[in-house]
Amino acid sequence: MKKYEIVYEKIKADILNGYLHKDEKIPSIRQSCNLFHMSQTTIEKAYDKLVLDGYIKSLPQIGYIVKFTREQIRLHREIEKVQNEEKEDVYTYDFRIKSVSKDSFEMDTWKRYLKEVMNNKESMSMYGMAQGEPELRQVLSRYAYKNRGILSHPDQMLVGSNYQSLLFILCGMMDKNLIVGMEEDAPLQTKRVFEAYGFKIIFLSRFNFMEDLKNNSIDILYITPACFGNHKEPISSRIADELLVYSASQNILIVEDDYNGELTYRSSSRQALHSLSIDDNVIYLGSFSRLLIPSFRISYMILNEKYTNIYKAQEAMYGPTASKIEQLAFVRYIQNGYLDKHLRKLKKEYKEKSEYMEYLLKKYTKIPFYLNEAYMSYFNEDLCVKDLKLKCEEKNIGITYSNKGIEIGFANISMKDMEQGIVQLIEIIEGVQ
Amino acid sequence: MKKYEIVYEKIKADILNGYLHKDEKIPSIRQSCNLFHMSQTTIEKAYDKLVLDGYIKSLPQIGYIVKFTREQIRLHREIEKVQNEEKEDVYTYDFRIKSVSKDSFEMDTWKRYLKEVMNNKESMSMYGMAQGEPELRQVLSRYAYKNRGILSHPDQMLVGSNYQSLLFILCGMMDKNLIVGMEEDAPLQTKRVFEAYGFKIIFLSRFNFMEDLKNNSIDILYITPACFGNHKEPISSRIADELLVYSASQNILIVEDDYNGELTYRSSSRQALHSLSIDDNVIYLGSFSRLLIPSFRISYMILNEKYTNIYKAQEAMYGPTASKIEQLAFVRYIQNGYLDKHLRKLKKEYKEKSEYMEYLLKKYTKIPFYLNEAYMSYFNEDLCVKDLKLKCEEKNIGITYSNKGIEIGFANISMKDMEQGIVQLIEIIEGVQ
Repeated sequence: MKKYEIVYEKIKADILNGYLHKDEKIPSIRQSCNLFHMSQTTIEKAYDKLVLDGYIKSLPQIGYIVKFTREQIRLHREIEKVQNEEKEDVYTYDFRIKSVSKDSFEMDTWKRYLKEVMNNKESMSMYGMAQGEPELRQVLSRYAYKNRGILSHPDQMLVGSNYQSLLFILCGMMDKNLIVGMEEDAPLQTKRVFEAYGFKIIFLSRFNFMEDLKNNSIDILYITPACFGNHKEPISSRIADELLVYSASQNILIVEDDYNGELTYRSSSRQALHSLSIDDNVIYLGSFSRLLIPSFRISYMILNEKYTNIYKAQEAMYGPTASKIEQLAFVRYIQNGYLDKHLRKLKKEYKEKSEYMEYLLKKYTKIPFYLNEAYMSYFNEDLCVKDLKLKCEEKNIGITYSNKGIEIGFANISMKDMEQGIVQLIEIIEGVQ
Repeated sequence: MKKYEIVYEKIKADILNGYLHKDEKIPSIRQSCNLFHMSQTTIEKAYDKLVLDGYIKSLPQIGYIVKFTREQIRLHREIEKVQNEEKEDVYTYDFRIKSVSKDSFEMDTWKRYLKEVMNNKESMSMYGMAQGEPELRQVLSRYAYKNRGILSHPDQMLVGSNYQSLLFILCGMMDKNLIVGMEEDAPLQTKRVFEAYGFKIIFLSRFNFMEDLKNNSIDILYITPACFGNHKEPISSRIADELLVYSASQNILIVEDDYNGELTYRSSSRQALHSLSIDDNVIYLGSFSRLLIPSFRISYMILNEKYTNIYKAQEAMYGPTASKIEQLAFVRYIQNGYLDKHLRKLKKEYKEKSEYMEYLLKKYTKIPFYLNEAYMSYFNEDLCVKDLKLKCEEKNIGITYSNKGIEIGFANISMKDMEQGIVQLIEIIEGVQ
């Protein structure tokens, strides 16, 4: 420690420990010279740093006084305290819909690819493209074609860390004061973006969607085709066609959030709306956090011609969001067939689990539950939530609550634990009815 | 391959190979039964899938016709082609300012931490908090205090993948139609966000900043204190104080982009504006892509009380953006002292390189260049860019061009190569003058 630092640390400590209070005068430079047996230059250097760092200030005719307030001291102490309070909950039975199956992901392969990518120092020391790494856009464009029927050029594609940041970019390219239609219980993250831009949101009834759509004049329709309408089911071909024809005729831009669109295990597989569109009026959002591991954050957006051109003109004005390491590792993961393999495994696993949960629910209760395929859960919208939540917490059972009842997810619970968990859960549910 | 798939693939291939054109009639189901020697059910299944996938459509009274257009076929082919055109450029002499020193980063340590984090399957299978992992916010809050003098609570902090996505979130919480002041050559990414929200932007002169600020009525001031004013230098204490007093008196919110604020190697170190503020009217943005490796994407934002409360109320409406693996590995990296160590190494390295480049520039040319400490470069704003760019490309020398001259970065060039690179560059520059 240098000499001036000793003085600096001593006075700083006196302030932080409350020995010197706000607005209190501290020793003059000359006094400190005597106190510390140091030169004026050294003391001045220490005082300058204390001023610079906001602990003291100099007042003309008066000298140096303490600037740090009590509130600042309190905050200082809080920062120094190590807090580990906000740890993630671990449930005995985890039926929350935000959890996913963690066993089928090829973690070792993934680690190997990350390592390979990191070995390329040249590539790691460059920012990468705002739009997403070219190799990844290339591979995703093929993936979207093969799995979702979407014909797109890599130039139309934006890669981002989650669909919300992509939506922030998309809406920022749009005119102001637009009117957006979406289902009543569209994701909150989506609502937030449209609200942030001051767009007017019209909520369309799940139970009467097409009619409601036609009764309202809107500019943009946000839709999640894998979880649609009355029964939160994949959208039917009939309605998809009707929607595409109607939106084209009314100049409505469709924002298709294809959340888990490729993950069909009970319904038959269907193509994305985008692939069936007739008027280049669909913008597609795809993501992988439910397909891979949730901690992995890569989403992509396929723009139509209009917005591709706007984006190209503004390209220099954006920065990359998704981790470059993860992007490049993901290229290898897809190219070597692991994504397809993983998707097949998940379909099999979720099919089994959903069928088993259906069987268990029917076995232990008369309360009806409906499959939400996209969210890997069974839901009931008529259950009283308040006491239920309390009771479930007591028993350390995790489920997902909404303002409309509950969802029981099966993605992250093992076949082995499922029966015992359902038995306990049903006991609680029937107890609070 | 199943029977119906043979039919499906055959007709699909005929369309994609151009043997069947748009609107052309394809064989009826009965004809295909004979053609393929298959049952009506099988052919129907194939045709249904072809319709579903958008290759053909059914017209009443006519039969099935091709729906796929030439443009779609062209796109299909492009997707199938493997393109590797957009590879990153590798220059013989890389003086671009977007490059950083790639040798001092502890890549092996980083890989080890990533691996450790990934071994925690439980944690990897959860989404994590939208606001950022609690452990990281805790650690960053201490880091910001120690290195930037900022007193903040982890609750005030948002972690994101880059500062632009954080800015998108911040502006989305603000009133509409605000007026923003920023320096003329503020980063494009910043401009884009304010423009996206329709805010009015007033550009303040670099050469007359405070006066210009006082002559305009603004709601928000965006500022990069490490690269400020006439000479792109760190902001002086005097101006910082004046700015803070004035903004507090006028109710101006300061958005402090502390780009490379802690990376001082020629100027003396200074605290962030945030730490000196008197009225809780500063929002702080910090990032690490220039401190670590650019491919690493973690930024953070420290909100004031007002916006912390707004964010808390909307918390459920945001998703996490920064990679969870990278966030948790970063916790270890900071906690074990690697960030501090790396910062010290970089300061030493950039000090040497900047001094050496200064020496070389003076040795080989009379054209004046000025140090831009925050961007690790020397700049001159009077150089003609057009021919220069062409000539540099020819010689495979990378520099950074703006509409106001050039910047020569020293971060990513070795001491060994620097002289030869500067000699060639100066030859080109003096040749096009």
